[in-house]
Parts: sequence; C-alpha cells; structure tokens
Amino acid sequence: MGDPMTYDLVIHNGTIVTVNSDFEIIEDGVIGINDGEIADLGGLDEGALPPAGKEVIDAGGGIIMPGLINTHTHLPMTLFRGLADDLPLDTWLNEIIFPAESKHITASTVRWASLLACAEMLMGGTTACCDGYFFEDDVARSVKDSGLRAVLAQGVIDYPAPGVPDPSENINAATDYVLRWKNNATRLSPSIFCHAPYTCSAETLTRAKSAAQDLDVLFQIHAAETKSEHDRFLSEYNRTPIQYLDNLGILDENTLLVHCVWLNDADMKIIAGRRSKVSHNPGSNMKLASGIAPVEKLAGYGIPVGLGTDGCASNNNLDIFQEMDMAAKLHKASTLDPTIMDAKTVLKMATIDAARAIGLDHMIGSLETGKQADLIIIEAHSPHLTPMYHPESHIVYTAKGSDVRDVWVAGNALVRDRKLVNLDLNEIIMQVNEIASVIKGS
Amino acid sequence: MGDPMTYDLVIHNGTIVTVNSDFEIIEDGVIGINDGEIADLGGLDEGALPPAGKEVIDAGGGIIMPGLINTHTHLPMTLFRGLADDLPLDTWLNEIIFPAESKHITASTVRWASLLACAEMLMGGTTACCDGYFFEDDVARSVKDSGLRAVLAQGVIDYPAPGVPDPSENINAATDYVLRWKNNATRLSPSIFCHAPYTCSAETLTRAKSAAQDLDVLFQIHAAETKSEHDRFLSEYNRTPIQYLDNLGILDENTLLVHCVWLNDADMKIIAGRRSKVSHNPGSNMKLASGIAPVEKLAGYGIPVGLGTDGCASNNNLDIFQEMDMAAKLHKASTLDPTIMDAKTVLKMATIDAARAIGLDHMIGSLETGKQADLIIIEAHSPHLTPMYHPESHIVYTAKGSDVRDVWVAGNALVRDRKLVNLDLNEIIMQVNEIASVIKGS
Repeated sequence: MGDPMTYDLVIHNGTIVTVNSDFEIIEDGVIGINDGEIADLGGLDEGALPPAGKEVIDAGGGIIMPGLINTHTHLPMTLFRGLADDLPLDTWLNEIIFPAESKHITASTVRWASLLACAEMLMGGTTACCDGYFFEDDVARSVKDSGLRAVLAQGVIDYPAPGVPDPSENINAATDYVLRWKNNATRLSPSIFCHAPYTCSAETLTRAKSAAQDLDVLFQIHAAETKSEHDRFLSEYNRTPIQYLDNLGILDENTLLVHCVWLNDADMKIIAGRRSKVSHNPGSNMKLASGIAPVEKLAGYGIPVGLGTDGCASNNNLDIFQEMDMAAKLHKASTLDPTIMDAKTVLKMATIDAARAIGLDHMIGSLETGKQADLIIIEAHSPHLTPMYHPESHIVYTAKGSDVRDVWVAGNALVRDRKLVNLDLNEIIMQVNEIASVIKGS
Repeated sequence: MGDPMTYDLVIHNGTIVTVNSDFEIIEDGVIGINDGEIADLGGLDEGALPPAGKEVIDAGGGIIMPGLINTHTHLPMTLFRGLADDLPLDTWLNEIIFPAESKHITASTVRWASLLACAEMLMGGTTACCDGYFFEDDVARSVKDSGLRAVLAQGVIDYPAPGVPDPSENINAATDYVLRWKNNATRLSPSIFCHAPYTCSAETLTRAKSAAQDLDVLFQIHAAETKSEHDRFLSEYNRTPIQYLDNLGILDENTLLVHCVWLNDADMKIIAGRRSKVSHNPGSNMKLASGIAPVEKLAGYGIPVGLGTDGCASNNNLDIFQEMDMAAKLHKASTLDPTIMDAKTVLKMATIDAARAIGLDHMIGSLETGKQADLIIIEAHSPHLTPMYHPESHIVYTAKGSDVRDVWVAGNALVRDRKLVNLDLNEIIMQVNEIASVIKGS
C-alpha cells in the first residue's frame, strides 16, 4: 500500500485473490477504496495497522476477490424455477415455458421476478450479469434498484413476444429500449439480444446487428446450442449455425455467442478471427441435454469465454460458484484429461474472462488499482473450507454462494453479513410467491 | 396422524418429502417421534393444532425430508482438501496423496480430520455415510462422538499402509477392527474395504471377502474406476475388473462396488445377478477424469445405486446436494436425453437407494412409521428456493447443504438453526488448521 491517507472504505485481514494478469494472491491483504474505485491494494506488513478509512471492514481471515460475473441470464425466469424439469426439450419449451411466458410475463411480474434474481445473485456473490429478455425496461429498473452492474438486452424474435405482440416491431422496440437506457444509469449498459438463428430471419438478424453497431452496444445471440439446430442449418443452408451467422456479418468483437455447444474447428477459427466472445453455460447445457461445449478448445483459440447460468427454468439457480465447479469437472470427465479447466482457468471464466466477454474488462473482473470496487468477501471459517492450501481451489471446487459474507458494487455495500442492504427480501419473496400461486393454478 | 398422544418430539409446519415407495409428498405435514423412531406421520387438517410433544419444532414452512446418505467417503481425507488439483492421476496419487498419507495420517490426525468431516456432513444434511480408510478405529470414535450413523470399514491393501505397516497383517487388522466394533455402538456398522482389484492380490481379495462373510459385514471395493484399470484387466486376465472379481467369488448382496465407471452390459448383468450394490460418485469421477458411469443403465438392471462424494481430496467437499445436482445433469448431457436421471430418481439415490446400497434400508432412507428418525429440515425462505412448485426439483436442482436448518439422527438433534449441537466446531477447525500447517511446511 502507498502512503497513508484516509479512504472511503478499507477492507483488510483477508487473502486477496486479485485475478490480475499474474494471478497474484496477497496474504494479509488490504484494499483502499475511494469514489467506488480501487485506489490501492497490497499486503500489510506484519504488525502494521490497516490505513485509515471512513469505514473499515475486517474480512475475518476470509477470501477477498472480484465479484463474480454471470454472462448469461434471463432474470425474470426465476418465476419458472422448477416449474417443469426432466422433459424432452420440445415439450418443455413448447408446452410449458412458451405458454407460461405468454400468459404470465407482464411488466409487473418481470419487475418482481427480476428483483428476486438480483437478490439471489447478490447473496451468492455475483456482482454483474448479462441478460436478455422481454419487458427489459422493467428488468433494468429492478437491476438499477438492486445496485448490481449489468448488460441488459431487449430480446428480438420473429414471433409475438411478451410486450412485443407484433414481431415487425421487434427491432424498433429494441432500438427504443437501448436509446432509453444508453447513458441513463451508471452501472447499466443496454444491449440487443436476437433469440437464435432459427427464430429470427436473416433479415431480422442483419437489421438487429446493424442497429447494435450503430448504437455501439453488445449484440447477443443463442447459437449452436443443440444438435438439432446444428443439423438443421447443415441440411438447410449447408452451413453450421456459426458459418451461417458469419455469412450474414453478425460476428464481430461486440458479439456474444451464447452456448456454442456444437462447434467444429472451422467454427472456432471463425469466432477467433472475428474476435467474438462466448458464454459457456455448463449447468443449462447439461440439464437440457444440449451436450458438452468444447470449451477447452475455445480457450486454445484465444476466444474469451465467460461462464453463465442461463435462466432459472433450466439450471435451476443463479449460482456461479456451482457453475465454476461444473465447468471445471465436466470437461475433465468428457475428455478424460484431469489437467484441463484447472481452477485458475475456471476462476478467470467467472471473473476477468467473463468481463471480457461482455465488454467490461476495463472496469471489472479483477482487483486492480483504478478498477471499480466490485468485490466480495468469502467467509472461510467453516468445515467445508477447512483447511485451505490454495484459495483458488476452494473458490472453484468447494465454496458456495452461501459462503459469501459481504458484497460491494462500485464501492456500495449491497450485502453485509449475508443480508441484503437495500432490497426487502421478505417483500420480494411474498410478491413472487403470489405470482407463482397464479401460475400454479393456471 | 393417529390418536393424540404425547411424543418425544413433534415436527410440523413443513412439506414432508417421504421418499416412500409411492414418493408421497405431504403438505402441511407433521411427524411424531418416540424413542428415536418415527411413531407417526401425516398431514395436519386445516386449522388443527399439531399433537403434543415434549419438544415441538416448527419447520417454518420448509421441507422435511430423510437425512441424506453418502455411500462413499474417506473421512480423514478432509486433511488433503485442495492440497493438489488438476494433475494427471498418477502424479496426483503417487507424488501427492500417497506420500501425504504415509507422512501425515496418524491416529491423532485421523481423529480431528474425521470430526471435521462429520461437522461438514451434518451441517450439510448428511446423516449417514459409508466410509473406508486406515486407522478406522479412530474414524469410528469420531463418528460415534458426532452422532452420525455410519458403515465404517478398515482398509485392506497389499502395501504398507497407515497403521498397518506390514501388509501381511492387513486382513487380521481388518478382522480385529470389525470384532471390536460389531455390536459395540448403536449407530455404527463395521465393514471391510479392499482398496481395489489392482492393489490387492487375488488371495487378499478372497480372504478379505471370506472374512467379511464370516463376520456378516458389508464388503466394499473400488472397481472399474478408470480406463487404465479396465484395459489392464482385459489385457492381463482377458476379463473386465467386474468379471475378474466375480470369478473370485467376491460379488454377493453384501458387496458394494464403488465407482463402476467402465462397465459393459455383461458386467451389469453380473452385478444384477449377484445382487451387488453400486456407489456412484459423479463429482470425483469428473474431477479425476475417470469418465462417466453408465448409471441410467444400472438402474435399468435394477441394481441399487447410491450417491457418494468420495474423499475430499478428489471432490473437494462432502455435499450430497451438489452430488445430486451433478448426477441429474451429467448423464443428461452425456446421453443427450433430458428425461433420464429425473429429480425423483436422483433423490432416491441420495436416500432410499443409498440406504439399500449400504444395507440399511430397513432402518433409514425414507420417512415412514417404524423407521429411525434420521431427518432434516430445509429452510425454504430464500431467493434461490423461491418460488417452489415441486419440492423434489428444489432438493435436487437448487438446494445446497447450506440450506439445511436442522438435523436429527435417531431422534437426536445434531444441528439446530444451522449450528452443531454436540461438536465444538471452533476447536475442530483450529486443530485441523494446525495439522494442515505441518502438511503445508512439509
């Protein structure tokens, strides 16, 4: 730490896992925060006192690390958590999820369901997410109230959708949404999300991407998720979904391709060449039986990959700790190679690489001077985190969302001692349960 | 519920997930417990008061369910949690784990490490485990003190082992151990664990199995875990590991085969025909890159399969909730079939089928009149368990060990309001951290 001064906030007495480019781990670390940014961080000399701060937090010997980043959510789908599981994909989507969405997704239900999602994410140590859904204005209002950081996209699909009954209005709706939120709220970045290459026409895709380019926002799309999607594009267009999208000019450095389960080497070369990003959602891909994404190969091509949970209907929670454990283990089993997807690689996918994937790595994803103070403290005094030889191993293979004690976003305390600071959890749970009782009865 | 009477313990105001043969789920359920057994259970009429009890517990609208059963542990390996990850199996085993065991496993370290494991299991809702290790007398003393229920096996291996420096004494050591613990402690059943078909000679295997038969205890063995084991038996004996063991007469209804990753249909027919049981450890099999066990096929053969975590060096925790989620998702991804390993099937593998696998299904594994009162309450008032449409879905896909509020074994409260009742967690953590500091320095 540099010269003594008074910080807005000082956090000390913990092991700092910086996730900086050297993957530096600082024992007995201390962080000084001013104006929501990390002003300084380092190790405290033995016997030295932490610097003065308007507020001084003792991390209690726990782990201080960057807040986790969830690169793929559909926040309002908390409403459908566990509504139906273990069904064939078509049945689940066409007979359960789509009808439930068309019946129960309104501005009001989206508001409460999104607040529930924010509560869950914050209490589980996630400080930023990248979302796509409908009624995204209402998602954005909830996320803004929660204090989370987020990239939030209005969905585009060539079918009547919640809030957009006329598909011919889908791109206008998305554009208007982006204009309303662009430079409106500090921690929110608007975005456009085309649902998939098979639910949006080539014209919709190119118009939406062009709008995203003009507005300089992230363009997101589910791509190469299932074998049937893959096979269909090969048979209809003689192209893989990635080749099809690339041919339309959709892929550039502001494109986030979600899932990417069914890729060949040519696809990966295209993605790398276009400097596009990938969101990897192992839990959802497993639960929906989509398959196992070739994530270890993507990393080999230098493609930034961030972890995501997907919506709560297909996971069924928003716990990035669980997703890290899944990601680290799944690919070892499928390749029979225990050395791939090691703890450091996976932890990066939940922090700095996730930040890269959603275009925020200049601000978040690691604990470094000048970056935003988006950070969490993991309480380590518990049986399952004892003993601790390597903090990164515990973060990936042992810790859970419930081990998160405190959470800050831009220096604002959002969780303290496992309690939400500025959301009324009881009210949120009550409101969502009321909506759910209507869904149950329908 | 039957006629009013006074119970030792009454638990009410929760949804009871019985896991009985009809998979009955009882809303607004109530359970009466006498002498450590379930005396009665059922639904409470609207407006009715729960029956009288010396102690009455309000489950707070949560889930009341059987305690989880972990069918494969090496409890003292909590000492090596996260000591080394992401290494080739040979390096990990021969350069890290075996040397650490030979250097640091003593009666005293086993005692504290096992207490830590018990603390972790209890706080995570596991009420019974099936273990195999060395210094098992000391494991047993710790487990006895913790109040857990367990099948605990002394390990047998044809190499010098902790506490058994002379391999020619391995079966005598195991036999003496069993005799010491047989009918000694109510909730503990001794057992014999031959490490593996490739670390025990044919003579050791047959003598150990014969001793287990004479003593009428469960015989356990790691079998068909890795491809290299599989290939080696095929090339050396022209038999799969399962065929090799069967040929030696090792397989009967008191044999628990642990892992069973590399099985063909003939192997499964043999296991089913011998009425042997299987312990499935998805997290460990994934982390060590052993492969993906054909669990959905084993169920098709009617073979009882219980879930297990394996030791903490290869998982890295003892959370059966996490293992359920893994098991439910992994096999969907590997088979591309989202309908297999549904929530009910997987929940059974962590309760009643696990009890079958370790020979305790007459006593535990479901909430039914006459069974032991081994049960847990899951607190449901939290973001990630809201809303709740199907409790079994939440148990498998959303809940975590940290959602467990209360735990009873044989009617004894072992966790209340997330705190251990009769173990001193601070002392255990301190002692294990001291041992770990020696391991770190070595």
